[in-house]
Amino acid sequence: MSTERLIYLPLGGAGEIGMNAYVYGYGKPGKERLILVDLGVAFPDMDSTPGVDLIMPDMTWLQERADQLEGIFITHAHEDHIGGVAHMYSKLNAPIFARAFTANIARRKMKEHGHPEDAVQIVSAWPEVIKLGPFTVGVVPISHSVPESGGMVIDTPAGRVLHSGDFKTDPTPIVGEPFDPAVWSELSKDGVQALLCDSTNVFSPNPGRSELELGPEITKLVEDAKGMVVATTFASNVARVKTLAEAGERAGRSVVLLGRAMQRMVEASIETGVLTQFPKVVSPEEATQMPRENLMLLVTGSQGERRAASAQLARGKYRGLQLKEGDLFLFSSKTIPGNEKGVIGIINQLSEKGVDVVDDSSGVYHVSGHANRPDLETLHDLVKPKMLIPMHGEHRHLREHSRLGLSKGMASAVVVNGMLMDLTGDTPVVAEYIDTGRTYLDGSVKIGAMDGVVRDRIRMALNGHVVVTVILDEEDEPLGEPWCDVKGLAETGRSKEGLVEVLEKDLNQFLKRAGKKTLRDDDKLEEGLRRLTRQSAQNEIGKKPEVTVVVSRMR
Amino acid sequence: MSTERLIYLPLGGAGEIGMNAYVYGYGKPGKERLILVDLGVAFPDMDSTPGVDLIMPDMTWLQERADQLEGIFITHAHEDHIGGVAHMYSKLNAPIFARAFTANIARRKMKEHGHPEDAVQIVSAWPEVIKLGPFTVGVVPISHSVPESGGMVIDTPAGRVLHSGDFKTDPTPIVGEPFDPAVWSELSKDGVQALLCDSTNVFSPNPGRSELELGPEITKLVEDAKGMVVATTFASNVARVKTLAEAGERAGRSVVLLGRAMQRMVEASIETGVLTQFPKVVSPEEATQMPRENLMLLVTGSQGERRAASAQLARGKYRGLQLKEGDLFLFSSKTIPGNEKGVIGIINQLSEKGVDVVDDSSGVYHVSGHANRPDLETLHDLVKPKMLIPMHGEHRHLREHSRLGLSKGMASAVVVNGMLMDLTGDTPVVAEYIDTGRTYLDGSVKIGAMDGVVRDRIRMALNGHVVVTVILDEEDEPLGEPWCDVKGLAETGRSKEGLVEVLEKDLNQFLKRAGKKTLRDDDKLEEGLRRLTRQSAQNEIGKKPEVTVVVSRMR
Repeated sequence: MSTERLIYLPLGGAGEIGMNAYVYGYGKPGKERLILVDLGVAFPDMDSTPGVDLIMPDMTWLQERADQLEGIFITHAHEDHIGGVAHMYSKLNAPIFARAFTANIARRKMKEHGHPEDAVQIVSAWPEVIKLGPFTVGVVPISHSVPESGGMVIDTPAGRVLHSGDFKTDPTPIVGEPFDPAVWSELSKDGVQALLCDSTNVFSPNPGRSELELGPEITKLVEDAKGMVVATTFASNVARVKTLAEAGERAGRSVVLLGRAMQRMVEASIETGVLTQFPKVVSPEEATQMPRENLMLLVTGSQGERRAASAQLARGKYRGLQLKEGDLFLFSSKTIPGNEKGVIGIINQLSEKGVDVVDDSSGVYHVSGHANRPDLETLHDLVKPKMLIPMHGEHRHLREHSRLGLSKGMASAVVVNGMLMDLTGDTPVVAEYIDTGRTYLDGSVKIGAMDGVVRDRIRMALNGHVVVTVILDEEDEPLGEPWCDVKGLAETGRSKEGLVEVLEKDLNQFLKRAGKKTLRDDDKLEEGLRRLTRQSAQNEIGKKPEVTVVVSRMR
Repeated sequence: MSTERLIYLPLGGAGEIGMNAYVYGYGKPGKERLILVDLGVAFPDMDSTPGVDLIMPDMTWLQERADQLEGIFITHAHEDHIGGVAHMYSKLNAPIFARAFTANIARRKMKEHGHPEDAVQIVSAWPEVIKLGPFTVGVVPISHSVPESGGMVIDTPAGRVLHSGDFKTDPTPIVGEPFDPAVWSELSKDGVQALLCDSTNVFSPNPGRSELELGPEITKLVEDAKGMVVATTFASNVARVKTLAEAGERAGRSVVLLGRAMQRMVEASIETGVLTQFPKVVSPEEATQMPRENLMLLVTGSQGERRAASAQLARGKYRGLQLKEGDLFLFSSKTIPGNEKGVIGIINQLSEKGVDVVDDSSGVYHVSGHANRPDLETLHDLVKPKMLIPMHGEHRHLREHSRLGLSKGMASAVVVNGMLMDLTGDTPVVAEYIDTGRTYLDGSVKIGAMDGVVRDRIRMALNGHVVVTVILDEEDEPLGEPWCDVKGLAETGRSKEGLVEVLEKDLNQFLKRAGKKTLRDDDKLEEGLRRLTRQSAQNEIGKKPEVTVVVSRMR
């Protein structure tokens, strides 16, 4: 194996939705020059990652090959594509490339982390290209739910690779460039070795609708509203923010932006010129002085995030503004699986205030940022790649998308994180399986998903926790009685005595009966005390708690 | 206020979906004779109730009036209506009434808890009635997604109350009685004071479809399948289980029931005669000897429950049976909000095995057990009550349903848990607000939702936990150095030293500097050590952990 090859290795995003990180390489096996496309994060939840701040792909493989890494491209400014850039920068230490809007967001992140902002370089759209080792890379504008999303043209000695990035085939996306079939056709006319393609909406059977269609519907809704109107969407969906703001303006309302992300995204859009016209905005302070029927609030928190503006308005006052009977709240957004409870909780709080809530169930106030199945076929048919490799999806999405490709005569494979693929030939071939996984940002520290830290937290949450303290004298005899501190357990159980008292009584008996051999041996003693505590609690309250045993010896 | 009145007090189920418990009363204020309709549970989640086994309504108000309680009626055998009966029986100590199938399930629960099974009395369907104090109560068969659901006719000196229970207006529900408009019309001909009405599907705009329509669709799906077919639904949806089993039989497959609930429900249905014909069932052991294309497995776990048959099959083998490439898995069910991640996780595991998954997204393999908006109107129009009181719903459902009633000329109010309503007059009037809430079954113990037990668990899960141990001698001087045990925290942080070492060093310095006044005072010392530990951890790993301080004094 000394001939050069083209490789593809997803480290995140293939087999999950979130934390995208795709490596491409070209060269002799093991000596490939590499580029990374996207470096995203995923978000924690109580079920599997309590207390964690962010989830990132485990980049160990790439870190160990940082000297082979030519550069990092960020396709667009969504957190699942850009969120890891500043966190991982010092480990990868490669130049970062992105279009102006995306670069603006990336630089804000670099600055927050104390990294040099100029490590992020702005690239112009295709046909401008950047040469990096064996690669010639260009970024092709493509429509998505954030400004300036880019598909990647990666030319290699083994042929052209097209990497769709997240995309939809919207001819009129309001902000950002439309999907242009002619461009993708032209790009593909000399043959495309592989198309790496977004799979998110492969199960959506109907063609996607355009952002342009929303304006009239939303305008009608706002015009009919009697009280204050509040609308929420992802702040990065600048097109939607504009659509909403203009609907407010047409209805004679003043627009208020609430939530830091909302302000940051509009600011970045104006700075980078992706947003030229935007209705006049008034501050929350000014808004409090205006009649509520003249206001249109655009707020963060469409996914029910507890600290975002939506949740705060649902709970009570936010920046002096308050919802009441007769107001209208619009979710111009889809609820991401896992966020349902949070969103429903907000809707119910709004209901208690007498606020009318309109959500996406009618399908007229939101369009997806991803290509539906027929739209994916549109791209397939324009590109006609030798291989179709589905990416950006859970296993079920990748599998369905791959089957679709095979049914249309393209070579294809289900490639998940850690599968190092050789794309040089006529079909994708697995060259190697790489250990991958997740890294958690926890407070200010990165921990491995397998470190056991989170497992211990989950156990404490499910089982509660008991601290058992025992002091032994120089002769290994108990000095006084053992005692317990409990957290997250019922105070009393079956016997109606305090749980602590019951545990301490049982522990004391155990110590009295324990032989010298046990008392002398830390491990034995701890294990005995732990087991007894769990049994005693099980008997008393029907739960086996986590136990920390602290043995102090007066030696 | 000495005239007699008719009261209604929801203790659970009004303002939430789950743990239904509705009190009706008649008599002089404070002296009313009472009946309880339903006594259900809700299920915990990691977000708000980690480690909890079951959530029940706080029944304190009713327990304090147990001598006024004439009886408990259970409308049907879903856990959110029946699940609390055995847990609360000893506190309420009233006879329990239900139709035969529901009584069968209730008795199984009573037996498991060591309560007398004959506390549960079987009632026949309307027009048979039971006289209890001022009440004459009958149970009217109504269609739902479980056998023998019952609507309640509650006759009082203040007029007739109809309590719909959970229902749909299905003319052909396969198992159990159809919805019969003539019965509801006849029941209402002399006027109905109040209709208490299911609100679950008030936001579903189209009329519900019948269970009967599913059979042909499911049969076609199963007939076209090449490998093993597995279908999951709620086990209590005996009609669906029958529809699925018959589809399997028609396709020439042998039926296997997997999961305890599946077997228990079919058993109870046969015992009570609600299920007369059911395809022959083979055991899992027999099934392992048969060709997979001849098998149809009906399994529990449609909501992604980790221990149920679906999840176990998705992970690997279950009772000798195993899924593989080319098999078909059907979710003949809707995913309840909050369960999406679990269900999607199973679908992806199945995808990894090459199993084709069909879910309810097409709308042809599942029908809801609840009346949609037009179906609710059907009942309203048959009953024409003086008042419509929406129940069984979150606030948003109750509000929408109440508005619908008002728009149709009925008196109505949004009544949530704890609102004691006087229904004697022409409109519902709030008579009193009762403190209500939730009780958790935690292991074998009941704890209050506000006891702080669960709050402490959540904090440990989010923040991790540190135990600080300090021993002081007779002079209140530290004996040796303090030490730390940590759980659920990163091992190393900013300084690259072990977190424990860093904390111990800081704690030791604190003790050295601490004055006699601090060292002598347990509270001051503990507070100082706690604060220092949190600050030191914040500095080192960016998190402030929960801290348990154990101070031992050699006195």
